[in-house]
Amino acid sequence: MAKRAAVILAGCGVYDGTEIHEASAILVHLSRAGAKVQMFAPNADMMHVVNHCEGKPVADKRNVMEESARIARGEVTDLAKLNVADHDVLIIPGGFGAAKNLSDWATKGKEYSVKPLVEKVIKGFHQAGKPIALCCISPVLAAKAIPGCELTVGHDCECEKWPYAGVAKSMVELGSKHVNKNVGEVHVDKKNKLVTTSAFMCNAPIHEVFDGLGVMVTEVLKLV
Amino acid sequence: MAKRAAVILAGCGVYDGTEIHEASAILVHLSRAGAKVQMFAPNADMMHVVNHCEGKPVADKRNVMEESARIARGEVTDLAKLNVADHDVLIIPGGFGAAKNLSDWATKGKEYSVKPLVEKVIKGFHQAGKPIALCCISPVLAAKAIPGCELTVGHDCECEKWPYAGVAKSMVELGSKHVNKNVGEVHVDKKNKLVTTSAFMCNAPIHEVFDGLGVMVTEVLKLV
Repeated sequence: MAKRAAVILAGCGVYDGTEIHEASAILVHLSRAGAKVQMFAPNADMMHVVNHCEGKPVADKRNVMEESARIARGEVTDLAKLNVADHDVLIIPGGFGAAKNLSDWATKGKEYSVKPLVEKVIKGFHQAGKPIALCCISPVLAAKAIPGCELTVGHDCECEKWPYAGVAKSMVELGSKHVNKNVGEVHVDKKNKLVTTSAFMCNAPIHEVFDGLGVMVTEVLKLV
Repeated sequence: MAKRAAVILAGCGVYDGTEIHEASAILVHLSRAGAKVQMFAPNADMMHVVNHCEGKPVADKRNVMEESARIARGEVTDLAKLNVADHDVLIIPGGFGAAKNLSDWATKGKEYSVKPLVEKVIKGFHQAGKPIALCCISPVLAAKAIPGCELTVGHDCECEKWPYAGVAKSMVELGSKHVNKNVGEVHVDKKNKLVTTSAFMCNAPIHEVFDGLGVMVTEVLKLV
């Protein structure tokens, strides 16, 4: 029987929503593995809208679910309707949307909280013993929702290749165990059935990010 | 030396812009082939904005280049600045953006015209003997800009798998030669150095679309 994957989106675009290429890669790998996919997003205002040419917020208002539907080609469901029993695995791509629309990590840093609906879903999969895959900045959601988990957001030493390495240190300060991994690798926390990978936390060519997400999808489906 | 690909985007989202997964797949395949990519988009208003949850236009105004920057992770250049001499190959993904923002095919059908800037670029590559790859609905741009060319938009007989097959017949009426091809195949018009494939004109799983675009990228790079 096909494995059923729930994918949570958080808008459409790296600076204020879901990182498009991470989401697309995940969908390609899930499709190739024969998984059945349902996409979800919060039916809520985006934290803000960023002009992606300039990287700056603009005076505009957009809905997370409506923008996520651009990635989902229309097939996106209100996150409030997600029923853990209907799915075997949860996957949340990265992009600032995870830090702006699924949590307030982007503005609060270590004092952040995960949006209640998102936290409920992550805890629901975790408590049901169902595997979860997170990439890029999305592992910060697990650091709060699954205390003491093991994860990777790439490397913990900042350089041109790892411009966001400070996040790894914050994960440790929040009580998670951070494991350095390259873009083509994942960390599997077997106890918590949590699979994480750096994706675009690494300044890598897009096909390497694509391949790393392939490993993530393969590993998380193995845990079903 | 790395082959230099110019990719033209037309917004971000299948119903009013570039089809996100086609663009992403093209970028992954170009990256794996070691090509150097520069993305371009018209600095112009989108024809309209579609709510992708409902598939209906809404009263909003967005700029093609700013929305394309969501796919390009900020790295997009005004199409007016594209210099054919700086590139070896031109690629235009599909999505309604090609029929709404790069031409007026979506509203005019066979009475359409290609936007002057886009037509100039296509003719520029063609006249310079540089290869062009188009997928999904984008081959309609070639039917006008390269009269008498050979192309595919998939199959010419409508069914559940080929819901937009009527486009193939229109291509023939416009003087092009249409060649039926499956989603994993391309047609290569050797004389015109034009490579086309159906992508999401076919109601196919996303990994099959991804693979078909891989064939497209491989074939068009061979023609450089």
